[in-house]
Amino acid sequence: MTVIYQRVALIGLGLIASSMAHAMRADGLAGEITGHAKSAATRATALEIGLCDRVFDTAAQAVEGADLVVLCVPVGAMDAIATEIGPHLKPGATITDVGSVKQAVVDAVSPHLPEGVHFIPGHPMAGTEYSGPRSGFATLFQNRWWLLTPPEGCDPAALARLRSLIEGMGAKVDVMDAAHHDLVVAVVSHVPHAIAYTMVGVADHMRRVSQSEVIKYSAAGFRDFTRIAASDPVMWRDVFLTNKDAVLDILGRFAEELFVLQRAIRMGDGEHLHAYFTRTRAIRRGIIEAGQDTAAPDFGRAAPPAKPGE
Amino acid sequence: MTVIYQRVALIGLGLIASSMAHAMRADGLAGEITGHAKSAATRATALEIGLCDRVFDTAAQAVEGADLVVLCVPVGAMDAIATEIGPHLKPGATITDVGSVKQAVVDAVSPHLPEGVHFIPGHPMAGTEYSGPRSGFATLFQNRWWLLTPPEGCDPAALARLRSLIEGMGAKVDVMDAAHHDLVVAVVSHVPHAIAYTMVGVADHMRRVSQSEVIKYSAAGFRDFTRIAASDPVMWRDVFLTNKDAVLDILGRFAEELFVLQRAIRMGDGEHLHAYFTRTRAIRRGIIEAGQDTAAPDFGRAAPPAKPGE
Repeated sequence: MTVIYQRVALIGLGLIASSMAHAMRADGLAGEITGHAKSAATRATALEIGLCDRVFDTAAQAVEGADLVVLCVPVGAMDAIATEIGPHLKPGATITDVGSVKQAVVDAVSPHLPEGVHFIPGHPMAGTEYSGPRSGFATLFQNRWWLLTPPEGCDPAALARLRSLIEGMGAKVDVMDAAHHDLVVAVVSHVPHAIAYTMVGVADHMRRVSQSEVIKYSAAGFRDFTRIAASDPVMWRDVFLTNKDAVLDILGRFAEELFVLQRAIRMGDGEHLHAYFTRTRAIRRGIIEAGQDTAAPDFGRAAPPAKPGE
Repeated sequence: MTVIYQRVALIGLGLIASSMAHAMRADGLAGEITGHAKSAATRATALEIGLCDRVFDTAAQAVEGADLVVLCVPVGAMDAIATEIGPHLKPGATITDVGSVKQAVVDAVSPHLPEGVHFIPGHPMAGTEYSGPRSGFATLFQNRWWLLTPPEGCDPAALARLRSLIEGMGAKVDVMDAAHHDLVVAVVSHVPHAIAYTMVGVADHMRRVSQSEVIKYSAAGFRDFTRIAASDPVMWRDVFLTNKDAVLDILGRFAEELFVLQRAIRMGDGEHLHAYFTRTRAIRRGIIEAGQDTAAPDFGRAAPPAKPGE
């Protein structure tokens, strides 16, 4: 209800930026929202559906006079954007981003920023499998975590202000350092995505099992993987290119763990399998108790309507 | 609305059997439902909530006079149950099962059946992460596939009758041979479950990332894996023990595929990653178009309510 930043510039207008725009408007957190996207079609959509009050053909124009600049572009595009906007940032402005990797963003952006602006990298841990300016919605961040990795010596007032914007959009804030962030997300996000992509890839290659069989019978487990394997390919390419070390570390552990399970299956070691499958149930309970997923069976998916003729 | 079997015996009273009971009652498909479960507590619950008209302490008693016997026990328990009930089956009765593996069930059950009963193995491709007699609901099978693997020379009338019961419960029937079934489900169900269990196991072992971090930040992808990794441990132990060959085949392919992805990450091969991630999107679209999953973002999970004090 209180305006926290007079002018917010959103650079990149996909799922996260459009959800931020909706959430900031719903609660009157920003006086004015300006925006820029690389594609003219996206810029036109952003105006048409009212995401931004004004959109600009260049990022440099969009950040002029902004109190808060939010970089919502794929991690691989951060360097070029920072180079472009650096000279145009308002003194005292705060700049943040929403990239899924933090050390690489710090390395790409920091060198291009002038003295006197506050760079506070961020990562909203929320998303859907959709992308683009029409995919956003105001409640995306509700009760989700938004991680901030402020550098040492970060201005406390600038940090508190950004935190109140984020909390105003419904999210919960945690602060940690960039390296720890990158390891945590390798576990909870990046490697799960790599594995989901791989499982879908395996199904795609099978000859003895047809693709139509895979699709028809996907409710048996496979379809849960396909949701995250449908996420934006550019964003995910950049995640794996820029969080390489942590991802390879966790993928290595995953492969070891999988081989132990595979060996137990080959050896027919029922006791090992039963003990392993029992332990993993407890984590699911913890997630539900923490309010991070629904307890409704099957994610609460409604039974699909019967289709005539099927 | 038409009674298809005068007396149906459910052996094992967990998620599938209790859902069948609700579905058969909702549409009046069975004249009477009898049941047996190993545990006295389960038997008492089944009577209390009206799953069965009568429950028996032994499977042999439960199948007396039944026109249809449905084995709803873990695959590893099929041999003992078939040995027990074989001499008590009514001549002309149909016997089916709901196990996730078919060749192993055929091998375990067939030798114990007398001449003159019709054995038609089956597998409803539906489930949730919950188990037990209270977990069932009448719409579980709605628009889901139910695979049947009748042996060569199976009586067409017996098959048609079982099919009409299954369709009466809202499911769609496909017929295939047992070996092909076991390969298909290794792809769409067994290996996805093995991988989900493994990913949850990796998170369980990490020291540098705490379990509470994994739980707090699970919405970033990890939580999708935990749902299927919370499934019944005994059922899944038996699946992996009895569909070993197909599971090891697909797990081997998965490991190869994962190593190719891992290498592309290590080499920084952005083109490979982008092409791979683009291809997998198409399969998700196919699943939604086939009505096997919801198109709602994030499986349609509602934004969780904010918890006070968090």
